[in-house]
Amino acid sequence: MIRLRYLVNLSYEILDPSADFLFLIQAARTARQSVVSETLTLTPAVPVTEYTFPDSCNRMLRVHSKKGRLAIRYEAVVEIAHRLDEGESLREVPVAQLPFEVLPYLAPSRYCESDRMMEFAMREFGSMRRGYARVYAIREWARNHMRFLSHSTNERTSAIDTLVERTGVCRDFAHLMIAVCRALSIPARISSSLDYGADPSMGLPDFHAIVEVYLSGGWYLLDPSGVSIPTGLLRIGTGRDAADIPFAAIFGNVQSERPYIEVEALTDSKLGIQMPLATMKAISTW
Amino acid sequence: MIRLRYLVNLSYEILDPSADFLFLIQAARTARQSVVSETLTLTPAVPVTEYTFPDSCNRMLRVHSKKGRLAIRYEAVVEIAHRLDEGESLREVPVAQLPFEVLPYLAPSRYCESDRMMEFAMREFGSMRRGYARVYAIREWARNHMRFLSHSTNERTSAIDTLVERTGVCRDFAHLMIAVCRALSIPARISSSLDYGADPSMGLPDFHAIVEVYLSGGWYLLDPSGVSIPTGLLRIGTGRDAADIPFAAIFGNVQSERPYIEVEALTDSKLGIQMPLATMKAISTW
Amino acid sequence: MIRLRYLVNLSYEILDPSADFLFLIQAARTARQSVVSETLTLTPAVPVTEYTFPDSCNRMLRVHSKKGRLAIRYEAVVEIAHRLDEGESLREVPVAQLPFEVLPYLAPSRYCESDRMMEFAMREFGSMRRGYARVYAIREWARNHMRFLSHSTNERTSAIDTLVERTGVCRDFAHLMIAVCRALSIPARISSSLDYGADPSMGLPDFHAIVEVYLSGGWYLLDPSGVSIPTGLLRIGTGRDAADIPFAAIFGNVQSERPYIEVEALTDSKLGIQMPLATMKAISTW
Amino acid sequence: MIRLRYLVNLSYEILDPSADFLFLIQAARTARQSVVSETLTLTPAVPVTEYTFPDSCNRMLRVHSKKGRLAIRYEAVVEIAHRLDEGESLREVPVAQLPFEVLPYLAPSRYCESDRMMEFAMREFGSMRRGYARVYAIREWARNHMRFLSHSTNERTSAIDTLVERTGVCRDFAHLMIAVCRALSIPARISSSLDYGADPSMGLPDFHAIVEVYLSGGWYLLDPSGVSIPTGLLRIGTGRDAADIPFAAIFGNVQSERPYIEVEALTDSKLGIQMPLATMKAISTW
Repeated sequence: MIRLRYLVNLSYEILDPSADFLFLIQAARTARQSVVSETLTLTPAVPVTEYTFPDSCNRMLRVHSKKGRLAIRYEAVVEIAHRLDEGESLREVPVAQLPFEVLPYLAPSRYCESDRMMEFAMREFGSMRRGYARVYAIREWARNHMRFLSHSTNERTSAIDTLVERTGVCRDFAHLMIAVCRALSIPARISSSLDYGADPSMGLPDFHAIVEVYLSGGWYLLDPSGVSIPTGLLRIGTGRDAADIPFAAIFGNVQSERPYIEVEALTDSKLGIQMPLATMKAISTW
Repeated sequence: MIRLRYLVNLSYEILDPSADFLFLIQAARTARQSVVSETLTLTPAVPVTEYTFPDSCNRMLRVHSKKGRLAIRYEAVVEIAHRLDEGESLREVPVAQLPFEVLPYLAPSRYCESDRMMEFAMREFGSMRRGYARVYAIREWARNHMRFLSHSTNERTSAIDTLVERTGVCRDFAHLMIAVCRALSIPARISSSLDYGADPSMGLPDFHAIVEVYLSGGWYLLDPSGVSIPTGLLRIGTGRDAADIPFAAIFGNVQSERPYIEVEALTDSKLGIQMPLATMKAISTW
Repeated sequence: MIRLRYLVNLSYEILDPSADFLFLIQAARTARQSVVSETLTLTPAVPVTEYTFPDSCNRMLRVHSKKGRLAIRYEAVVEIAHRLDEGESLREVPVAQLPFEVLPYLAPSRYCESDRMMEFAMREFGSMRRGYARVYAIREWARNHMRFLSHSTNERTSAIDTLVERTGVCRDFAHLMIAVCRALSIPARISSSLDYGADPSMGLPDFHAIVEVYLSGGWYLLDPSGVSIPTGLLRIGTGRDAADIPFAAIFGNVQSERPYIEVEALTDSKLGIQMPLATMKAISTW
Repeated sequence: MIRLRYLVNLSYEILDPSADFLFLIQAARTARQSVVSETLTLTPAVPVTEYTFPDSCNRMLRVHSKKGRLAIRYEAVVEIAHRLDEGESLREVPVAQLPFEVLPYLAPSRYCESDRMMEFAMREFGSMRRGYARVYAIREWARNHMRFLSHSTNERTSAIDTLVERTGVCRDFAHLMIAVCRALSIPARISSSLDYGADPSMGLPDFHAIVEVYLSGGWYLLDPSGVSIPTGLLRIGTGRDAADIPFAAIFGNVQSERPYIEVEALTDSKLGIQMPLATMKAISTW
């Protein structure tokens, strides 16, 4: 059992008479993750509507606010009960047996143009033994063939750009890995989280994009950029790619500050709540 | 009331030991559209699984078939009771009031990169009066600034390609219109149909891609390529873009023939079932 | 007659054991432009080789330097005797009559993908009266359909990106205008200069990219971004696009500082040397 | 010594009142290649202007023709005296020592976006021993990581598309190899030829795009698609990429037929004129 305390502060200056915001910053409630406590504070105290999407468990907040400053503070304590499976036991599921709800994660999406990577994926990974080992090999390929470089890409960068330029940040690693998986008919999606365990020399704590792949009846989590300790990754939202899960979608002329984030593991040996540790096992999110 | 008879024949040669297919060819059942009768025949008579997606009403067929020929024949009689609204009465819905289920249709998608067209959309359409008139102006812009040219594009062509090359087929017109709408915060999605009313000189009847936009509480249908009579458009599937609604997604080494399609209006003056006619009104699909 | 004093300081930190540089910073010597005086200083005083390309008059400097700092200081006084022609007298030259040496400027190039803009160019500008008026209309179109925004693009941005995103800096305006001209079979090329006359509120003096088009037997200069006073534009280099005329091409691991630039008009009423002034005439560079 | 007979027939239907053509179909005259005899016939017998570009030796033909049919017939006997060098003796030339005239072949171009492939090229080939061996390794990489598939690409396809899609024809193999070489600071250019030695099962004889790289003081020829016998490759034109050397650039509304081509080796044992044979040596074109 893992317990994380997570804080995010967002701060905006609205320059139009008013602006609309869609936030996706709250910890999801899933079979493996529960929210022990949370507080959400808006300054000024404008009304906020929350909606949980039934398929993804994404918790969207909608805010309409007038000209001037808007600050959001969200703090939560979250418990994660990962199930760790043996990678060797996990198989790729044939299209004929995939749940229909999973099929959309085979299609190409805005930042994961898998339809253009079929030949590449087949040549690099087509003859590998299928299952978790192949998925892990894709993750290793991304790590070994790309350079992690902060600020080298932007929010319009897609997997094709990354396959060519071989440089990017966590979200670019995730998009490329997802596109390759889908090109091999392995359902894959993006998951937004926090970079628990990242080397402090890389900068302040931040949001973090990772990958989930569907194997043997459920979704498994991988971090192709390798900056975090995967067992310490809590789920905020999942989607086809980054277009589905921006932490803030803003409608109107608004100046944004960089998000301020804290994340820490809370341990309690009596309760069996431990530090997130590295593992060679496959991390289930179902 | 409109009644259409629709026939599609698909024919494949499977070269692998087996292959998987996902078909989206059946008429949807919606508030405005009912299936009077339908027959589906597979030769050989392999099992077929059907699933109706709850949000989109898309009816997906899944087929697993062995090496050799596979033929699908689907025939249906479909009734459409369009509601025709006055365009002037239809307003754009502010983000703050959109149903949460509609919000995904504001995000960029594989073939509709609205995130890169913000400045363009604002410059061309930003100062227009909002509502159906603006949406219709986008449709007219597409028709007046693009060339319809068969076989000029392929299944990887996206709205950005089309904005640059100004040439394409129905699906390219649809993707560009959708991307522009989303860049203006108007929810928009693709709908697959049949090109009822198309000039026979353009070729045999075919599948047809059109656009739905969300206005005043529901989705309205437009045909930016202008080849069909919109009141004669039945709905097969809807999605974010063509990545979501291929009529056939094929997994395996398969040779395909061009689909054979028939579509005709059935009239019955006693029952008030009429020919699809052109209209200046907005065509509701809800 | 115009006389300009121009200074550029470049400063590098070479991190590899050595690095190679190709500089294109010196004022060109052309039929319309003479270098009254110039000094070039390298610190340390490494050898420098100069080569003037016969077709373009571009003066390339080649430098090989060891690990550590490298500073380049170039200062020149340059005289420009523009010939100002009546735009109405300038005609587009049919392909059959273009000098063979000019034909390469009809082909698409790295940042000017004119081959993909044929339909767009024909629809927007195809029916206009041919000649300087049409070229000027293209320049006005770029100014009226794009936003000048510092730091919005990078050195990989091409005319296609700009046609889609409608945002950029001088080089992006130039690339888009060049691509449109070539799509209409009007030879066009890029020219590097300094932003004489730019509004100081836009920042420090800088290099500046402008356009030359071939009309009636010679090349004419236009500034599609409109930030400079065109009669005050001296020529450094010309090429097909920015790939041909970087002010510094660097081979090796080198840290660069932002170039420091000064440019000012020197006047002398006795000699008839005047301030650069706005003009409605076409500015010949031949 | 190799002797080839080469015939090309081009056929057009001009739909406009007149149209302009630039042809690049004649065998070049170079240090290694001489034209023994040639005939050029135009039907109708419209005037034709020829110009030989001094740097490239490209022989451009310009034709202006009226509405109706235009046929071009060119036949030549060409002698090639290849110099075959030991690959091991060929070194990469440092930028500091490259002839200035060669430097443009380091820059990115329309279809060879080397500026976006730096990280990829360095990761795949950066640590290899420099020289012909590295260039040959790039050629082998292209052959082993791409699928040759007729009609899979079009005239707008660039090296970036090919790096992603891993499918193409000779010109795509050439563009990708050129881009990789330039990203490693190895000058590279395209050369147009005929596919002497191609497997007849691949179709009729055709134009053929190959690569030249600059090593040890001159240009060496490689065929990354591997369909021809390189010693049987005569040179028509060279350029930065396919944008520079279309066999026909057409200005006006013209319908084209597929070129008809013949190429055969003429042998004469008394004169020492032999069949083109495979070689492991490096084929000099200087």
